[in-house]
Amino acid sequence: MQIDLNCDMGEWLAGSPSGHLPPEGPLKGSSTAGARIQTADADIMPFISSANIACAMHAGNPLAMERTICLAIRHGVAIGAHPGYPDPEGFGRRPMSLPPDELRASLLYQIGALKGMTESLGGRMRHVKPHGALYNLAASDDKTARLIALTIKDIDPSLFFVGLAGSVMERAAREAGLAFVSEVFADRAYQDNGQLVPRTMKGSVLQDPGYMISRVIRMVTEGVVVSVGGKELSVDPGTICIHGDNPSAPAFVQELSDRMKEAGVAIRPFGEA
Amino acid sequence: MQIDLNCDMGEWLAGSPSGHLPPEGPLKGSSTAGARIQTADADIMPFISSANIACAMHAGNPLAMERTICLAIRHGVAIGAHPGYPDPEGFGRRPMSLPPDELRASLLYQIGALKGMTESLGGRMRHVKPHGALYNLAASDDKTARLIALTIKDIDPSLFFVGLAGSVMERAAREAGLAFVSEVFADRAYQDNGQLVPRTMKGSVLQDPGYMISRVIRMVTEGVVVSVGGKELSVDPGTICIHGDNPSAPAFVQELSDRMKEAGVAIRPFGEA
Amino acid sequence: MQIDLNCDMGEWLAGSPSGHLPPEGPLKGSSTAGARIQTADADIMPFISSANIACAMHAGNPLAMERTICLAIRHGVAIGAHPGYPDPEGFGRRPMSLPPDELRASLLYQIGALKGMTESLGGRMRHVKPHGALYNLAASDDKTARLIALTIKDIDPSLFFVGLAGSVMERAAREAGLAFVSEVFADRAYQDNGQLVPRTMKGSVLQDPGYMISRVIRMVTEGVVVSVGGKELSVDPGTICIHGDNPSAPAFVQELSDRMKEAGVAIRPFGEA
Amino acid sequence: MQIDLNCDMGEWLAGSPSGHLPPEGPLKGSSTAGARIQTADADIMPFISSANIACAMHAGNPLAMERTICLAIRHGVAIGAHPGYPDPEGFGRRPMSLPPDELRASLLYQIGALKGMTESLGGRMRHVKPHGALYNLAASDDKTARLIALTIKDIDPSLFFVGLAGSVMERAAREAGLAFVSEVFADRAYQDNGQLVPRTMKGSVLQDPGYMISRVIRMVTEGVVVSVGGKELSVDPGTICIHGDNPSAPAFVQELSDRMKEAGVAIRPFGEA
Repeated sequence: MQIDLNCDMGEWLAGSPSGHLPPEGPLKGSSTAGARIQTADADIMPFISSANIACAMHAGNPLAMERTICLAIRHGVAIGAHPGYPDPEGFGRRPMSLPPDELRASLLYQIGALKGMTESLGGRMRHVKPHGALYNLAASDDKTARLIALTIKDIDPSLFFVGLAGSVMERAAREAGLAFVSEVFADRAYQDNGQLVPRTMKGSVLQDPGYMISRVIRMVTEGVVVSVGGKELSVDPGTICIHGDNPSAPAFVQELSDRMKEAGVAIRPFGEA
Repeated sequence: MQIDLNCDMGEWLAGSPSGHLPPEGPLKGSSTAGARIQTADADIMPFISSANIACAMHAGNPLAMERTICLAIRHGVAIGAHPGYPDPEGFGRRPMSLPPDELRASLLYQIGALKGMTESLGGRMRHVKPHGALYNLAASDDKTARLIALTIKDIDPSLFFVGLAGSVMERAAREAGLAFVSEVFADRAYQDNGQLVPRTMKGSVLQDPGYMISRVIRMVTEGVVVSVGGKELSVDPGTICIHGDNPSAPAFVQELSDRMKEAGVAIRPFGEA
Repeated sequence: MQIDLNCDMGEWLAGSPSGHLPPEGPLKGSSTAGARIQTADADIMPFISSANIACAMHAGNPLAMERTICLAIRHGVAIGAHPGYPDPEGFGRRPMSLPPDELRASLLYQIGALKGMTESLGGRMRHVKPHGALYNLAASDDKTARLIALTIKDIDPSLFFVGLAGSVMERAAREAGLAFVSEVFADRAYQDNGQLVPRTMKGSVLQDPGYMISRVIRMVTEGVVVSVGGKELSVDPGTICIHGDNPSAPAFVQELSDRMKEAGVAIRPFGEA
Repeated sequence: MQIDLNCDMGEWLAGSPSGHLPPEGPLKGSSTAGARIQTADADIMPFISSANIACAMHAGNPLAMERTICLAIRHGVAIGAHPGYPDPEGFGRRPMSLPPDELRASLLYQIGALKGMTESLGGRMRHVKPHGALYNLAASDDKTARLIALTIKDIDPSLFFVGLAGSVMERAAREAGLAFVSEVFADRAYQDNGQLVPRTMKGSVLQDPGYMISRVIRMVTEGVVVSVGGKELSVDPGTICIHGDNPSAPAFVQELSDRMKEAGVAIRPFGEA
């Protein structure tokens, strides 16, 4: 049995003023406030199988991208683009009404940049997962889902499209002839109807690491998750999303990794045998 | 006896997607990665007397500015503008050759924005301290120091100009008729000639909190600091800079504050009796 | 009889690399592509009475702001802030879902910056007119209109709020205790119900300069405008908006100015006797 | 006989609010101020053989890139990347001290983005020409020239490196194993020592179209250019740069193209037989 663990990465500002580089070398951090986040990336990378790397529009910058790509290659982690709205001030989490031609151009640009960088560094880009408000819109809006799918296809029809399990992204991917990867979340609660509990509601984000880990293992080994109403729901996860933006994330992912191995589940990129 | 403690603040990206706000309310954080830094701001603010608030050009955004201003007002901390190069990707730490008219316009804009926001919120802006590469250039380049001083004067001739002790900024401020505040650093070593040990050299940044605290207290109470070569140098600090961008900063500043009070030194904004 | 003519200005990127400055001096242009637009600003300024100056978020930069303020002061033109969404790539014309606290902070920042700069240069900021997608939203959305009005009030309750005639901005302004200035457009057609013909419909933007001028004069002198359906509508314009972003704008505004003087209408800032 | 004519393009902000698109379709412009420049691009493209397309860092945006790539493909014009400093406010013309790792990452990003977009649209990227202050630095600074050459090589060793004739860029390109293309300027005067007259000196930029055209033809057909001191200098141009940022540029390039054809000189991309 095997499953993919993915995490969003490269969402910090790398910089290298003289004297500020840490002794571990250029992969481990920067002088800016964001360096701490990069440390999180460095701590999480050894335990996941897919990295969604921000493309310097909603967060990150080219140097953060380069370092994150290098880190992923070093750890044999699959590399994907994580494009978002061009809104660094809002971290790509504020809805924007981008006209279709602007959204398409922005996606070509962001995914193209990550692809070019990755190939220049000797790696290969395997997947695309939209970020934040764009992901949320694509999960419910057919037109946006289709636009993203067709744009990915124009870049490379062998790319995987990672999106919310059971959302309209799935159909859009299949219609475009792309392989779709159903994403579930390690830390998000489900409603009885199978949808995520919205973040605005209490209890939407799980807090107990032990419970989350057991739940993830059951999702993978039994194909079942229990809703907030106590209902057993069928799930068929292609990848499990780990959120890296809280201080306990590295410890959590390491523990999850250990427990999965004990349960006989290999952590491996989707699409790899 | 009294001294001012200053810290650079507001150098993070505030945001407010629904459901992400922490229970403490809008002053305590945001959903973005930067929130941890804001937490640092919140933890440090009670122990300092002057906050240099980033003006959304080298770092920060308007919402971070507004929250930081509110936080400073709540704690009775003096508010100053902390303008830097318009280079968020480089955190204002990369030297830029801004033509004089562009630098002047950028300063008018940044300081004007902080002034306007502060007054709208019922506060008063008292000082200006340049950031990063701009601070470094102004410490050695006469023309830049003068340009900054004259621009500050055009905004409000009663503003304090905070700059490196013993640098050309001091003369530039006095020539422009501005009050100058000599800044020394809690964590930086001095050469025998009285200049800071450059960051590129080993030992430039002190690490031992106990030693740093004793040294700061001696600077204030005796007007003396010991150089790396063991020489006793005279200092007359108008303000002491605390760096807030490492995880131990809140604990350090609290300890420093306690020890100063024990030594009979009040922490109070410069220019206040 | 008198009326105000307003125009959006400062929506270009000023720069000053050596050797590129035109002989007329720093007010007349820049080396960037935008210089041509600045030339338009310079050509239009002598004939209008109010300038809405972009605040470097949707367009423009601090140097463009400073030059435009200087130009307005030189010509005795009233100065206002023209804040927009922080989206230079989209020129502030793409709708954005800014949470209320972020929108408020952005407005405090932008208007504060223009206020500070204007006062530093010896001028006075008199009004605020929102830009693009923000203007459109505020014209129909009560909450946004009120948020803008209350933010303006916090900055300075004597500021004029310039907005779409007959829109919800008017009530929001009055409720906040602000003076409202009803804006009509020299080049936009009206529907029979008094609303503007949407830009997406044919005939929404008038093209014939002679007709536009006669129509503007009738709006001012008779308080009447003829709709696309031939209906006579009552109007009570407080200001007339001239669009400066087409090559014929300077010639048009000069001709309009001449014809208004012939018709006995003085061009003067609103609120001035 | 043949020569390449190159022009910098895509240095404007494309946008597509409803109702603003011109009747000619999406390739011909936008609603923003920059649209006029795009019109210039459209007018110049039919007469040149290589387009250096801005990569959305010093100027332009993804939509402008996409449209410019499409336009180049339509006209059979060779496509190159035109990367610059990430400084849109300064149009990439202000010197910046980017640390080497940040410069390299920025180049990988920009060139990668243009490469990815071009290939997604069915085209091929053939060359790289640095922009503005980066070009000027690379023309005299060995380290920068080498960093650029090695970065280009990492992306694709078959790319052409376009740079200033006779500068250190040439050696850097050859050492990296890249084909170098010597650029001369249609509108710049030469000193007796073969270097360009600096832009800060009078007479650096030629104004007489007829003279410029004769001079270009002589450079190509005779390999000679006359310096400001009247000296005949040898030149061996690989490409001739046309500046598109003044209103007379389209007429000039059309006239140049006609006169070259009369003189038996074909306009064709470098490296093509």
